[in-house]
Amino acid sequence: MRFAAVVLLAASFCFAQEEGGFKPATSNVLDAQYPRVDSNSLVQIRFKAPDASKVRVNFWSGPKADMEKQPDGFWTFTTPAMAPGLHYYTIIVDGAEVSDPGSTAYFGGSKWASAVEVPEAGADYYLPENVPHGQVRQIWYHSSVTGAWRDAFVYLPPGYDTSNARYPVLYLQHGAGEDETGWIRQGKANFILDNLIASGSTKPMIIVMANGYASRAGYVLPDLTGKPFGSPEFMQVMQERMGAFEDDMTQVLIPFIDTTFRTLSDRDHRAMAGLSMGGMQTFQVTFDHLDLFSYIGGFSGAANVFAMGNNKLDTKTAFHGAMADPAAFAKRVHLLWIGVGTDEPTRMKEGLENLHTSLDEANIQHVFYESPGTNHEWQTWRRDLKDFAPRLFQSAGQQPK
Amino acid sequence: MRFAAVVLLAASFCFAQEEGGFKPATSNVLDAQYPRVDSNSLVQIRFKAPDASKVRVNFWSGPKADMEKQPDGFWTFTTPAMAPGLHYYTIIVDGAEVSDPGSTAYFGGSKWASAVEVPEAGADYYLPENVPHGQVRQIWYHSSVTGAWRDAFVYLPPGYDTSNARYPVLYLQHGAGEDETGWIRQGKANFILDNLIASGSTKPMIIVMANGYASRAGYVLPDLTGKPFGSPEFMQVMQERMGAFEDDMTQVLIPFIDTTFRTLSDRDHRAMAGLSMGGMQTFQVTFDHLDLFSYIGGFSGAANVFAMGNNKLDTKTAFHGAMADPAAFAKRVHLLWIGVGTDEPTRMKEGLENLHTSLDEANIQHVFYESPGTNHEWQTWRRDLKDFAPRLFQSAGQQPK
Repeated sequence: MRFAAVVLLAASFCFAQEEGGFKPATSNVLDAQYPRVDSNSLVQIRFKAPDASKVRVNFWSGPKADMEKQPDGFWTFTTPAMAPGLHYYTIIVDGAEVSDPGSTAYFGGSKWASAVEVPEAGADYYLPENVPHGQVRQIWYHSSVTGAWRDAFVYLPPGYDTSNARYPVLYLQHGAGEDETGWIRQGKANFILDNLIASGSTKPMIIVMANGYASRAGYVLPDLTGKPFGSPEFMQVMQERMGAFEDDMTQVLIPFIDTTFRTLSDRDHRAMAGLSMGGMQTFQVTFDHLDLFSYIGGFSGAANVFAMGNNKLDTKTAFHGAMADPAAFAKRVHLLWIGVGTDEPTRMKEGLENLHTSLDEANIQHVFYESPGTNHEWQTWRRDLKDFAPRLFQSAGQQPK
Repeated sequence: MRFAAVVLLAASFCFAQEEGGFKPATSNVLDAQYPRVDSNSLVQIRFKAPDASKVRVNFWSGPKADMEKQPDGFWTFTTPAMAPGLHYYTIIVDGAEVSDPGSTAYFGGSKWASAVEVPEAGADYYLPENVPHGQVRQIWYHSSVTGAWRDAFVYLPPGYDTSNARYPVLYLQHGAGEDETGWIRQGKANFILDNLIASGSTKPMIIVMANGYASRAGYVLPDLTGKPFGSPEFMQVMQERMGAFEDDMTQVLIPFIDTTFRTLSDRDHRAMAGLSMGGMQTFQVTFDHLDLFSYIGGFSGAANVFAMGNNKLDTKTAFHGAMADPAAFAKRVHLLWIGVGTDEPTRMKEGLENLHTSLDEANIQHVFYESPGTNHEWQTWRRDLKDFAPRLFQSAGQQPK
């Protein structure tokens, strides 16, 4: 029975020892006691590196600090009070940037990174509650654009299987360096929708989460060594991937979704939103295809707000002139929604604020949402979804049949 | 546009430079050029650790070796020819065991570990082919046994949504230190079934993949410091988790699946199999509940084969006496299947071989499958599933209606 005994317990033994109110983070792997969080949102990190000379903790939107070596070969660090939400971090061991084995791995920064969940007092809208739960399906489709199999995740609302109803669809995109798993694993989009639908504040809808990276069939990523950021060669790669994503979504994915699921497939019942890079993609895809979309959301990212600097958006010419006539625009686009966290980096905040001001001054109907006290992180985007989703598919005549 | 340019490219730039036929592993994250594999199944690992004194690569069922420091701060290692399949590994940086950021992270060893996929010449049964694809759903259920929300993955065969058919169900369990994501992400169970179903060799079926770890509501993992492996305290924890899993599966999960999906819910249409720890769990659960199951599979793990040593199984008394009458057993259990890789550790191989011999000598009808040249790894279990699944639900009168 020795083998069975080993295997029924996790490899690293840690036990319920709660000092000073610290508890293992809900984002930990089974039985891992670190990282842990106390009721004041302090986070303790512990990492085993007995022979290392220097170990640093690297919160991507938080403290970056040397950890302290303990006699037992573990290095430890306690943060100041953290904002609520899921905070990506890595550990830097003698120059090697790695993940913390105590944490669930989340795909971010183009790698499987660590993160620690800091609870928000009183906020349960993204937790699994005692309400009907939708299902999340992973689907595979062959893309004639990329020449390869691609996958996507699809949230189906509670009751989908037992009804004959057709549902509106929200296409919801992750950020740079993330992938199609982000909105479920980090964002908890399924629980957010379960709760919103249960309270009656949001229409049941399908959510499609695709991978935002694509390359056309046969495309070979060129060697960009010596081609700096912003060089024509660099920009060409960016344009290539952006265009491939746009074509895959509009020519392959949307038709696949509409034939695979019971969707309402007209533009009045199709929305797109995304965070950061996904917000920029949303603006490009939707304004190139207003025949397909009528609800648009940019979460900490919208159009090319970074290129704006302190300039205003020229609403007469921007987006192929879609906003030139504000009244016509308001009729055509049922919702234009942009949001940003108040603690995001200045450039991001100013970009979104400038966009908001430009839209206001031109009388372009839109919603501007600010998430108090959160950075360019998932708590901002969870709140965004909570504000955005109830505004979808509310126009007259757009009820699911 | 600078931000957009950054974000549309992955953080670490590497390009298509193929030296000596080495290509990035299919298990890598987007744009990562290492690990890479050549046509002779050699694997090159590269890991950045500019300030480390010692970096080792640690293939769990393969080479464990010092890596060589290069002038650019990267450490490299090339393996001898590897067996085909997905090989777990970690990197040990000055004593810290971590994952390789170039690899997709797979949950194994109770952490999100690295792995490299070495192709098998001529084997495409676990690859996405141009055949109808099933969907994989993540579902959530509240367990009255554990007092918490649990999730599981469910494979639905192609056509499930567009038919009214009911389907038989295979419960398929991961190994120790793994979780409910393993059979899809590492095992490719969905592609294996898609291909088997498309070729007509396997009946369409539902596969349910649950998390093999459970604890009863209110249970607190005791501090096992100083309680060695095999001590009464240790064994009690094992029994606790095993019993909680068994109760959750039989009392909560199976009823949930049977009410949520169009299943054939009698014992003739319910199978269970698992790998390693999952095989041991399979034997415990199925033999405790032969009223629920009629097909049983142990993949590199079955009953308590490790406790057997060189002893034979007493088939008269084992499994509550279910095998005491071989003819009655063959009628009651439609399939008893055990398998092992020929390169697995001696103790595992001998345990399974002893079980096989014991069953043979007692005239207990069963299948014994040996996977040539593979270790206690996922390629063995992919092959197991490929051999096992076509044997399911083939008895007369067990066709899906």
